[in-house]
Amino acid sequence: MTTITTRTVAYPADGLTMIGHLALPSGTGPRPAVLLGPEGIGLSDVERRRADALAERGYVALAFDLHGGRYLSAPEEMLARCMPLLADPDRMRAIGHASLDVLRAEPRTDPDRIAAIGYGTGGAIALELGRDGVDLRAIGTVNALTTGRPGEAARIRCPVWAGVGSEDPIMSPAQRDAFAAEMQAAGVDWRVVVYGGALHAFHHPPVDHTVRPGVGHHPVHARRAWRDILGLLDECLPLTE
Amino acid sequence: MTTITTRTVAYPADGLTMIGHLALPSGTGPRPAVLLGPEGIGLSDVERRRADALAERGYVALAFDLHGGRYLSAPEEMLARCMPLLADPDRMRAIGHASLDVLRAEPRTDPDRIAAIGYGTGGAIALELGRDGVDLRAIGTVNALTTGRPGEAARIRCPVWAGVGSEDPIMSPAQRDAFAAEMQAAGVDWRVVVYGGALHAFHHPPVDHTVRPGVGHHPVHARRAWRDILGLLDECLPLTE
Repeated sequence: MTTITTRTVAYPADGLTMIGHLALPSGTGPRPAVLLGPEGIGLSDVERRRADALAERGYVALAFDLHGGRYLSAPEEMLARCMPLLADPDRMRAIGHASLDVLRAEPRTDPDRIAAIGYGTGGAIALELGRDGVDLRAIGTVNALTTGRPGEAARIRCPVWAGVGSEDPIMSPAQRDAFAAEMQAAGVDWRVVVYGGALHAFHHPPVDHTVRPGVGHHPVHARRAWRDILGLLDECLPLTE
Repeated sequence: MTTITTRTVAYPADGLTMIGHLALPSGTGPRPAVLLGPEGIGLSDVERRRADALAERGYVALAFDLHGGRYLSAPEEMLARCMPLLADPDRMRAIGHASLDVLRAEPRTDPDRIAAIGYGTGGAIALELGRDGVDLRAIGTVNALTTGRPGEAARIRCPVWAGVGSEDPIMSPAQRDAFAAEMQAAGVDWRVVVYGGALHAFHHPPVDHTVRPGVGHHPVHARRAWRDILGLLDECLPLTE
């Protein structure tokens, strides 16, 4: 177990003050870095602990915020904020860029070695950074097989890995096909993993006792998706190069 | 680098004398074991070296034979033999069981800890062993998302991992959907990885200079598929337990 350092970082984006969670590995000097985007419900300890786990492996990691420090556990409020956001690539990119600027400004970050991963809305933002031409080493998303504006996927120059639950009604088979077609037409190096039987947000421990149709935790596939994300980083963002 | 021992094993199956390649890890005592099935073209050094790599990791591995020691590089001959075989679950199972018996008879094999992996026709045989109710720790296949007889997938009691190239015309999207539906309906713990842009047999180095429509090597995805197979074994067939 190595000692990591964590810090809360406040920065402006989307008209709000975002409250991110920055995790630094032990040691000194620049290290490869990971931008980590949360589910649409907002940044929570789920993503903070994932950032910490990445720092324990040796990466600088920023779990970024979507909603100005708020956690939108009421589905109506979450949808009211996320649906317009997901429909607006420029807004998503602005949130992504603001977070990326914070990550790049950290002295421990090697600005030439950054990957973006994310879940749900946070994953959609990771993909939009790629479609905006940001120089990333990898993009990894879970339940975020979102498509973009025509032609822009060709700006993605890094491997893309995307995981999805087979029974996810939000990332439907038609949406998965559209995502795959977009990536393939753009000449992107892409992969999709379909986790059998998993629902939307399968990677996320239950938020409360409310039953949400189409949403559910799948601990076994959640562990696999995390290992798959780590495998993507091992491949594309090695700790020594 | 550990020292492994390899042995050619001859055994009867499907009216032929099969010539398998058995690879044993260094050390003594029983170890977990892997049955490894080749592409329809037949057993070659591609699969022999994969069995050796598994033995170097500590597994007993048997790369089994499909065609009585023959390698069917002429597509017409390969199809003439494999198409009827793939249409006959009982014949596939008989070949699989004969190979499994050889693997189980090896004193270094722990008969309670066996996984079956395979490519193409060899992968279809691995799945048929599962549908026959064989007690396996994992089934992993590459470009073999083959469906079985109605109801029999419910006999599969181990995790199933299947990889396929997105552009594989033989394992078409409709076939992938049928496979996923069969696994899901049977309550199997399953995953499918779609490797973007990869063709049929993408994991296999070129056999010769002949261009075969829909078939092609993809070295990057080939490495990923091998790592994914090793990840499946790490998860389901740990070397120590």
